Amino acid sequence: MDSNTRAKLVDDCVNTIRFLAVDAIQKANSGHPGTPMGAATLAYVLFDRFLKHNPANPHWADRDRFVLSPGHASMMLYAMLHLTGYDLPLSELKKFRQLGSRTPGHPEYGLTPGVEMTTGPLGQGIAHAVGMAVVERWLAAHYNRPGNPIIDHFTYSIVSDGAMQEGITSEAASLAGTLGLGKLIAVYDDNHIQIEGSIDITFRENVARRFRAYGWQVVGPVNGHDADAVEAAIEEARNDEMRPSLVICETVIGYGSRRGGTARVHGEPLGEEEVQWAKENLGWPTTPDFYVPDNVREHMGLALQRGQDQEEEWKNRLQAYRDDFPEDAAQLEALLLGKLARGWDIGLKDLFPPDTKSMATRIASGTVLRTLAPMVHALIGGSADLSPSTKTTIEGAGDFGWRQFIGHNLHFGVREHAMGAIANGMSLHGGVIPYTATFLAFSDYMRPPMRLAALMGIRVIYVFTHDSIGVGEDGPTHQPIEQLMNLRSIPNMTLIRPADATETAEAWRLALENTTGPTVLVFTRQKVPVIDREKCQPAEGVRHGAYLLWQSSAGEPELILIGTGSETSLALEAGQTLAGEGIAVRVVSMPSWELFDRQDQAYRDELLPPAVRARVSVEAGSRIGWERYIGLDGAAVGMNGFGASAPADELFRHFKITAEAVADQGRALVRG
Amino acid sequence: MDSNTRAKLVDDCVNTIRFLAVDAIQKANSGHPGTPMGAATLAYVLFDRFLKHNPANPHWADRDRFVLSPGHASMMLYAMLHLTGYDLPLSELKKFRQLGSRTPGHPEYGLTPGVEMTTGPLGQGIAHAVGMAVVERWLAAHYNRPGNPIIDHFTYSIVSDGAMQEGITSEAASLAGTLGLGKLIAVYDDNHIQIEGSIDITFRENVARRFRAYGWQVVGPVNGHDADAVEAAIEEARNDEMRPSLVICETVIGYGSRRGGTARVHGEPLGEEEVQWAKENLGWPTTPDFYVPDNVREHMGLALQRGQDQEEEWKNRLQAYRDDFPEDAAQLEALLLGKLARGWDIGLKDLFPPDTKSMATRIASGTVLRTLAPMVHALIGGSADLSPSTKTTIEGAGDFGWRQFIGHNLHFGVREHAMGAIANGMSLHGGVIPYTATFLAFSDYMRPPMRLAALMGIRVIYVFTHDSIGVGEDGPTHQPIEQLMNLRSIPNMTLIRPADATETAEAWRLALENTTGPTVLVFTRQKVPVIDREKCQPAEGVRHGAYLLWQSSAGEPELILIGTGSETSLALEAGQTLAGEGIAVRVVSMPSWELFDRQDQAYRDELLPPAVRARVSVEAGSRIGWERYIGLDGAAVGMNGFGASAPADELFRHFKITAEAVADQGRALVRG
Repeated sequence: MDSNTRAKLVDDCVNTIRFLAVDAIQKANSGHPGTPMGAATLAYVLFDRFLKHNPANPHWADRDRFVLSPGHASMMLYAMLHLTGYDLPLSELKKFRQLGSRTPGHPEYGLTPGVEMTTGPLGQGIAHAVGMAVVERWLAAHYNRPGNPIIDHFTYSIVSDGAMQEGITSEAASLAGTLGLGKLIAVYDDNHIQIEGSIDITFRENVARRFRAYGWQVVGPVNGHDADAVEAAIEEARNDEMRPSLVICETVIGYGSRRGGTARVHGEPLGEEEVQWAKENLGWPTTPDFYVPDNVREHMGLALQRGQDQEEEWKNRLQAYRDDFPEDAAQLEALLLGKLARGWDIGLKDLFPPDTKSMATRIASGTVLRTLAPMVHALIGGSADLSPSTKTTIEGAGDFGWRQFIGHNLHFGVREHAMGAIANGMSLHGGVIPYTATFLAFSDYMRPPMRLAALMGIRVIYVFTHDSIGVGEDGPTHQPIEQLMNLRSIPNMTLIRPADATETAEAWRLALENTTGPTVLVFTRQKVPVIDREKCQPAEGVRHGAYLLWQSSAGEPELILIGTGSETSLALEAGQTLAGEGIAVRVVSMPSWELFDRQDQAYRDELLPPAVRARVSVEAGSRIGWERYIGLDGAAVGMNGFGASAPADELFRHFKITAEAVADQGRALVRG
Repeated sequence: MDSNTRAKLVDDCVNTIRFLAVDAIQKANSGHPGTPMGAATLAYVLFDRFLKHNPANPHWADRDRFVLSPGHASMMLYAMLHLTGYDLPLSELKKFRQLGSRTPGHPEYGLTPGVEMTTGPLGQGIAHAVGMAVVERWLAAHYNRPGNPIIDHFTYSIVSDGAMQEGITSEAASLAGTLGLGKLIAVYDDNHIQIEGSIDITFRENVARRFRAYGWQVVGPVNGHDADAVEAAIEEARNDEMRPSLVICETVIGYGSRRGGTARVHGEPLGEEEVQWAKENLGWPTTPDFYVPDNVREHMGLALQRGQDQEEEWKNRLQAYRDDFPEDAAQLEALLLGKLARGWDIGLKDLFPPDTKSMATRIASGTVLRTLAPMVHALIGGSADLSPSTKTTIEGAGDFGWRQFIGHNLHFGVREHAMGAIANGMSLHGGVIPYTATFLAFSDYMRPPMRLAALMGIRVIYVFTHDSIGVGEDGPTHQPIEQLMNLRSIPNMTLIRPADATETAEAWRLALENTTGPTVLVFTRQKVPVIDREKCQPAEGVRHGAYLLWQSSAGEPELILIGTGSETSLALEAGQTLAGEGIAVRVVSMPSWELFDRQDQAYRDELLPPAVRARVSVEAGSRIGWERYIGLDGAAVGMNGFGASAPADELFRHFKITAEAVADQGRALVRG
């Protein structure tokens, strides 16, 4: 191909991407044309000249990962996926942003083949990409053998000015630099424009200097509309395997439109007239819409054969790997499938025998983690600088640190927000079961990625300890009140707050088994009694979310007491008191609303008979919300405001969260 | 004083601070000795050599502000406040971390004189300090006159490694650099240690380079145990009035203890033996506890007279200011008192006459803001780069930007988390009524400062638009589901979701009047009908949180329909349908749970008669939580999972949030 033909081909590819996006947005009468028009060259160069992927198999384990951090540029990604041969026909592009299409407003994981994660909330993309790059290095460290790097791929992300301003990006970039994730490459679409105008009004920092301070290689700035310049810059980024790389590409937002270079082109369709003007301006046919020239179709379509060849080569190497290292291969393949080994949970059996002394559930959790880790190699995680308190270190399993990629313990630093996102990215990559940990009060810092995990339906385990006023002296900033209710209300999030050590083991088991969404595990700071399972029903009931723990007599009770976590034992004590007074009382342990709500009506009605309206809940958190189970006629023992700084025992008395208070409320409901 | 005496005095002061903290923590058997021991010199130099404050009047408007970002070092602050003459006697220090004391585990605003904000959650402190520095410059720009800088003070903060890792710090520092807040000085207690060990395991970035990239002056590193070196560095920081300054002070955590320089000294009492060793090591008397030598008592106590003199001088200047500029003085003093001008809300009267056409409540909100702004000079705020969508620009009021400190519109950038904290800091400074804005889905990014505002009980207005699936095509990442419930559950947070333009005006009125806590205002993206107030009850009912909007007949109804925001009109339509079918129906508009719950029992029971159990709620958000008002026998129309990407009208039909669905549920409850 001569250089003119080649130059025209590049232009045609880039304009095809641009105008597929423009046309789809125009047809939907909704969307964001600015970034696809401005960054089309970046997407083209990445997909055409670098990305190792097989459009025929979006799940190939050793593919390069690509994350579009500015999810509002979704049509640019859909155009790439369509042109390179993913199962995303033009008919889907024509249904952009319509109900039931595979081309929603922002890319959604699980809905569209080739979409590696759901993006839209700014800053999440690059932070998740860090997690993907972590797992790539971790698997490589464990399984690569001389001459056969069975896991060896890049993680690319296109990032925008918006993401650069988000704190989560700073957190994730700082950690990526600390770890030396050399196979992570962020391509920065530096267009100097944001919604409120030029970035100068709010963002005068020197991004290149900032990233160098983090320990990144910074390449550029280069002209983001010059494909060869972008290619050379990315090549330079790839060649530095010691540091993550930021490739700064200067672009014009809305390139080709009269509104190019202004905020006006960011977030709404161009309008028919401007679409036509822009096409003419760039020498593009104004009809038909959704035009893909034959040379583009043919050239971009080469990705399919190239990808199949690449995966084939890899499969051959995998076969060689199986032959040479059968045990490693079996373990790696099981990891990639997300499968738990046979008998993985055998250590949980009788881990806490009946004579176990009172212990904090965070301590029990640490014991469970240490017990499971040898059988569940996939477990990798850590805390936001609180592991001595959260008890989440896997002892003896080593650190995942600077250029030391084999350990299981990741020190996230005081970066809760990035921690959540990085853990998500780890799960998305596949091959590991990530967990995070911090105090429950600080779950507030992690909400955006937790919501994304629930939306994506991925397995991540978020451990939160110090789960109530039981925190004690650290006071109201560290005492969660509304957090339990808040986390329960995220769709597809499962929260489990076990009552004691035995329920803690069950909670971990369920978290590991939950492959269709994230799980929140909530543990106490303070000691709680281990429930006497000879007098009470077994902890396996955790599986049902709520279960009959104890009752004074068979049959329908007069009164139901419902407890969670550290307050379950208060409910039990109150129940026994009231039974002594002749009240027919049932005590329900309800560690998980979500698991209970998923039981069938018969189970739920048997446990909480609709006719029994004398119900008391007890939880050392917000009372608001408990009406779901106690209705308008019940009573909630719990918090009605913020906590205070004092020893925990005093606080429980001060805020009247005691067995006596539960008994008083129950008695009043029954006796009137 | 000769140099030896002076050196001993400094040592004595620093050791007094150290060991007051150590003794209090030991007595409480709980707390964090590491930072007070390591950073005592920094606190001493700031308070003794720089801080302009009057311990006898912690509310003096032109005092320097001091924020202790690592709130776990609270005892260091309490020691300073005690020694410099605040109303915090030694007896309070001896009750550290006990119920009812003024010395809680982390500093709490409003509880302890001299505590400028509640700190503890890391990173919040410095971000709030940015807000304080913003208001200082804003007031100065408006009110200072040649020769009489009536507002002219510094904002100091001590920050720690933990804060440096938090994304919110990056966001706030980037904005502070952009704005050129030269009177903001952060003193960095750089001790290289965090809870999980040396910071090298997770934080290898170059902090000085990072802050220079933000546009900050960086001074140091200096030896943080050398008072004169620290003084010189802070002096250098003060001299650069064009840029905020970071003063890097290298310190040894737990200085004086055998555990100094290790993570083991961070978060638990030293123990009696180690206390004794450390005192002996630093040449400090081992008895009595809580020892304050006379020379220290005398020297530190000078702060009181100095402060009174400083305030006196300022008061004289204020009197001169009143004489020279009576109108400006009156306005400034009213601002500082947080008072609204007489007739401030006169523009709201009949702002939306009965014939007003359907409009999105975000549009109505923009109209209200423009109407109020000329009368409420204190209003200053902006959005996280979404003002064209949130309609929160005060047109004609100018920008607050780089070295341009007079405007009312602050471009926060895509930094939701820092935006919340900066707004809080602005409120804490006093003199303004700050507001923020973004999409409701992104409230998740702002939770930690919002919670702090509620805990501190300060007036901040958080505007959130695009409040439901009414967002439409942007899809589930941008469609809030659980956010309404989540924000309602924060103690002392008031959320108002008005039904139409008329309720929107009332909502803003209530937000401005709420001086004891933050208010969340929630607005639609999509158009909603303006309720016909000739047929329905007036919008003033918003004040009661919920009110009778319309009913088919007087007396107790058979059925109650409860709506909020955009769904109120659906409830009304359904009510009229069912009335036509002969059902005695009442329609309740419930824009604010919190305001309703604050009404007396009589009002609540009259509106929602306890005997009427046929109740339907309708809200395009999470159904979970509505049991609070509909009980176990009612029905909730709302969302039960995430949204989707499609035109809004289609989504409401798809998710069955329609007047028909409400009517169907109501009919089923009544007719069975």
